[in-house]
Amino acid sequence: MSETINVMLAGPRGKMGTEALKMIDETNNFQLVGCIDRKHNGQLVSEVDGLPNLNAPIYTDAEEAFERLNADVFIDLTNPETGFKHTKLALHNHIRPVIGTSGFSDGQLDELKKLSHNQQTGVVIAPNFAIGAVLMMRFSQMAAKYFPNVEIIEKHHDEKLDAPSGTAVKTAQLIKEVRDSMKQGHPDEHETIAGARGADIDGMHVHSVRLPGFIAQQEVIFGQSGQTLTIQHNSTDRKSFMSGVKFAVEEVMKIDHFVYGLENLME
Amino acid sequence: MSETINVMLAGPRGKMGTEALKMIDETNNFQLVGCIDRKHNGQLVSEVDGLPNLNAPIYTDAEEAFERLNADVFIDLTNPETGFKHTKLALHNHIRPVIGTSGFSDGQLDELKKLSHNQQTGVVIAPNFAIGAVLMMRFSQMAAKYFPNVEIIEKHHDEKLDAPSGTAVKTAQLIKEVRDSMKQGHPDEHETIAGARGADIDGMHVHSVRLPGFIAQQEVIFGQSGQTLTIQHNSTDRKSFMSGVKFAVEEVMKIDHFVYGLENLME
Amino acid sequence: MSETINVMLAGPRGKMGTEALKMIDETNNFQLVGCIDRKHNGQLVSEVDGLPNLNAPIYTDAEEAFERLNADVFIDLTNPETGFKHTKLALHNHIRPVIGTSGFSDGQLDELKKLSHNQQTGVVIAPNFAIGAVLMMRFSQMAAKYFPNVEIIEKHHDEKLDAPSGTAVKTAQLIKEVRDSMKQGHPDEHETIAGARGADIDGMHVHSVRLPGFIAQQEVIFGQSGQTLTIQHNSTDRKSFMSGVKFAVEEVMKIDHFVYGLENLME
Amino acid sequence: MSETINVMLAGPRGKMGTEALKMIDETNNFQLVGCIDRKHNGQLVSEVDGLPNLNAPIYTDAEEAFERLNADVFIDLTNPETGFKHTKLALHNHIRPVIGTSGFSDGQLDELKKLSHNQQTGVVIAPNFAIGAVLMMRFSQMAAKYFPNVEIIEKHHDEKLDAPSGTAVKTAQLIKEVRDSMKQGHPDEHETIAGARGADIDGMHVHSVRLPGFIAQQEVIFGQSGQTLTIQHNSTDRKSFMSGVKFAVEEVMKIDHFVYGLENLME
Repeated sequence: MSETINVMLAGPRGKMGTEALKMIDETNNFQLVGCIDRKHNGQLVSEVDGLPNLNAPIYTDAEEAFERLNADVFIDLTNPETGFKHTKLALHNHIRPVIGTSGFSDGQLDELKKLSHNQQTGVVIAPNFAIGAVLMMRFSQMAAKYFPNVEIIEKHHDEKLDAPSGTAVKTAQLIKEVRDSMKQGHPDEHETIAGARGADIDGMHVHSVRLPGFIAQQEVIFGQSGQTLTIQHNSTDRKSFMSGVKFAVEEVMKIDHFVYGLENLME
Repeated sequence: MSETINVMLAGPRGKMGTEALKMIDETNNFQLVGCIDRKHNGQLVSEVDGLPNLNAPIYTDAEEAFERLNADVFIDLTNPETGFKHTKLALHNHIRPVIGTSGFSDGQLDELKKLSHNQQTGVVIAPNFAIGAVLMMRFSQMAAKYFPNVEIIEKHHDEKLDAPSGTAVKTAQLIKEVRDSMKQGHPDEHETIAGARGADIDGMHVHSVRLPGFIAQQEVIFGQSGQTLTIQHNSTDRKSFMSGVKFAVEEVMKIDHFVYGLENLME
Repeated sequence: MSETINVMLAGPRGKMGTEALKMIDETNNFQLVGCIDRKHNGQLVSEVDGLPNLNAPIYTDAEEAFERLNADVFIDLTNPETGFKHTKLALHNHIRPVIGTSGFSDGQLDELKKLSHNQQTGVVIAPNFAIGAVLMMRFSQMAAKYFPNVEIIEKHHDEKLDAPSGTAVKTAQLIKEVRDSMKQGHPDEHETIAGARGADIDGMHVHSVRLPGFIAQQEVIFGQSGQTLTIQHNSTDRKSFMSGVKFAVEEVMKIDHFVYGLENLME
Repeated sequence: MSETINVMLAGPRGKMGTEALKMIDETNNFQLVGCIDRKHNGQLVSEVDGLPNLNAPIYTDAEEAFERLNADVFIDLTNPETGFKHTKLALHNHIRPVIGTSGFSDGQLDELKKLSHNQQTGVVIAPNFAIGAVLMMRFSQMAAKYFPNVEIIEKHHDEKLDAPSGTAVKTAQLIKEVRDSMKQGHPDEHETIAGARGADIDGMHVHSVRLPGFIAQQEVIFGQSGQTLTIQHNSTDRKSFMSGVKFAVEEVMKIDHFVYGLENLME
């Protein structure tokens, strides 16, 4: 039997926050000890409309919450500004933070790293909680050493405004770290209609499909003479983030240092 | 039992020609009665290095071949110039031509159409013998009536020089015939790296992947709220053309008029 | 400009019914004139919690609704028993029914066919409103004439109890109608672990994947020497049915006879 | 600039052997110093029909070849019996062997391991030279720690006799090593047609498609709530093995011990 992990959470009424409460509720060895919220001070989570039936108190004062609650792990699903304050408070109280944001500056990350070191308290900052996407990027980086020719196709709903997606760009950057810069395709290739060969990131071609009916999908295709290797991630629901949050909570218990990105928690 | 179809063929030593001879050899009710070749006049097919063991005579004089041979169908796998002369000779001799070329001019096609009509002799001109590709284009045109949002991804080996592929452009044109012109994607979408959203053909986005390890593949993706429909053709070998040639030979026996494109032979 | 189609609907508070009301609301030339519901007699749709803001009256008495409302089309999204009664009432009142059910008996379908003929009023009964799935099945049947070798892979969430899915079985039956019965694969093939080659339907192999993360997906794969052709449908949301309902409403206005299955409304 | 690696090869006239000679010819820092063949003693490779234009001598006596040739690496593409003898001779001569076979017994592997240790000479035995397939298996094992629900679909031409494929079984075994044994799918799921849910390997379901038009393809699909992760390898040509041979030659130069499987050469 795993030992119980006492968890506190900031942002219980956001979409992600509510999903996280459900996940905590459904995980045998996780125990919710309290929440930080902008409203409902003094109430129980179970008393708030739309939240799961959990008997944990709500605090609007973060400092009070960190002092009163006997928590092992603190999950923050608010915003970068509030999240940064919370993370520092948590570390000062030796409560391990699990923070889902890509919005911290380099300076903020440095400050948290030092604080984690001084407090000897583990912290996980995760810009992406979708374990499948994290694995896709990691495998892509590994594969690129042996398959330098690679293209990326990402497919999203047609409400998405920017192309290529952030995940596609990040994947290309990770691949760039491990392969020599190269111009892919035939040296004499030409587009008879502009854009056919996609966006060029360090010689890699990236293609963005936007159609109703898709949610979020990416495939990374590696080719060499006689074979192709494809790694595809398909996300259909934000529930997919919860397995990543759960994993981070379990792993932050095992460390006493600063970790950025779920991939660095994986063996 | 099907009745035997007597076949003559021009271009037996080309790659496609040799594959066609094998196909004729393996088809129970096809019988090779002779070939037109630039060399080997008077020899048997079986006497020529690399050709199947078929006891059919070779002629270098096309006129002589069409007069002497008792053929039902004439297959031409040479080139547009020679093929045009052969087709006219075949029609004059009431032998039904099956011609694989996209190289005839509109004027030439008109001339053959009239000749076919006057001779009351069926003829099939096929720019593409890959039945799978023909079906993909046909289904795409049918689907577009109900799914106006569509993107095309075509993947080829990285020796291919032009992008997008001819098949992708043709597919987009066929779709264009049946849907209203529309700009796909969000009206405010923007590329952070040029080319990400692919080539634009009448509002449809077309993406060209070029990687070693691919041969020739295309997928046509239709999306609408809550669902996607994808039609994919994958070609791995020129043998794939032979089922199209066989189909054309069988169908040309049933018609006494001019047909352009295998799709117009399908029910 | 299209002329306005006056629509009445039974079952507004069911999941499908509410989606249909939204679709009617969003379609310019559709006008809701009233609903049949088991509750809320005399109220407006807009007064019922969870329904769109539409000023159409609700009737609990179906006969009264059909007599009072000046409707062109009647949509039923209730259940087979109620739906059958409603359909007969609609036809008697020369209102064209669009009914989404696979639950009518052959006898009931015959009765409705005769009634439609006598009343010279069009009716559409659709066991499946997902246009993409209907097209997938139709294209599969067309492709099978040229590609007799075919396998089906369907993928669903792991809460699904039966395998293969009803759509996979129906697809195989449609293919069976147009190809000769044949045993696929090598005559001497053997399974080293039972089940590897899937379920056998008239020689076609059908494979059922059950994994969390999938909703409902099917691919029909046709193969012949040197090429494959794949038709794939992916359903991610029940909203996907609404384009089929909308299509049926538009098409039923053009007919004065009985039609079973959306595929028979397509050109 | 990389230093030149002197290579000798046994089995130059086999399909794999000839491809390997081409690869050596095309690799700048590889130099063929000689071959072992059953015929053509004393001739040059360039003098044998069908082999590349390389001025390296052929020996029929293996012992003589190993003594006379100044090689760094020895590639064997013969058969397990001959290969085993050659490998021992190579190690005795401090020439690093790269051997592509899955046919050695455990006893033989032990013997080679000891000999490699005693001679302090690196050796690579690879049951599979397709780097893409090796990566697919490795990534699958890594992903299974986070995604215990997994199914495998492998697709081959319909001349393949056994199902599932050896690679599918090996992949399942590798996954089994890292996840707890579990029954996948709904506990109450049932097949209405036997075989629909595929072969069962430790709770994992494996599906074998056999169709003309496929060569060799495998996809490993991981699912969890809200997301799927798919790893796919597609092999279209035996040329795909050559990048694996090349990689093994480069890596064996860096080691002085015994390695079984390319995956153990990867970081």
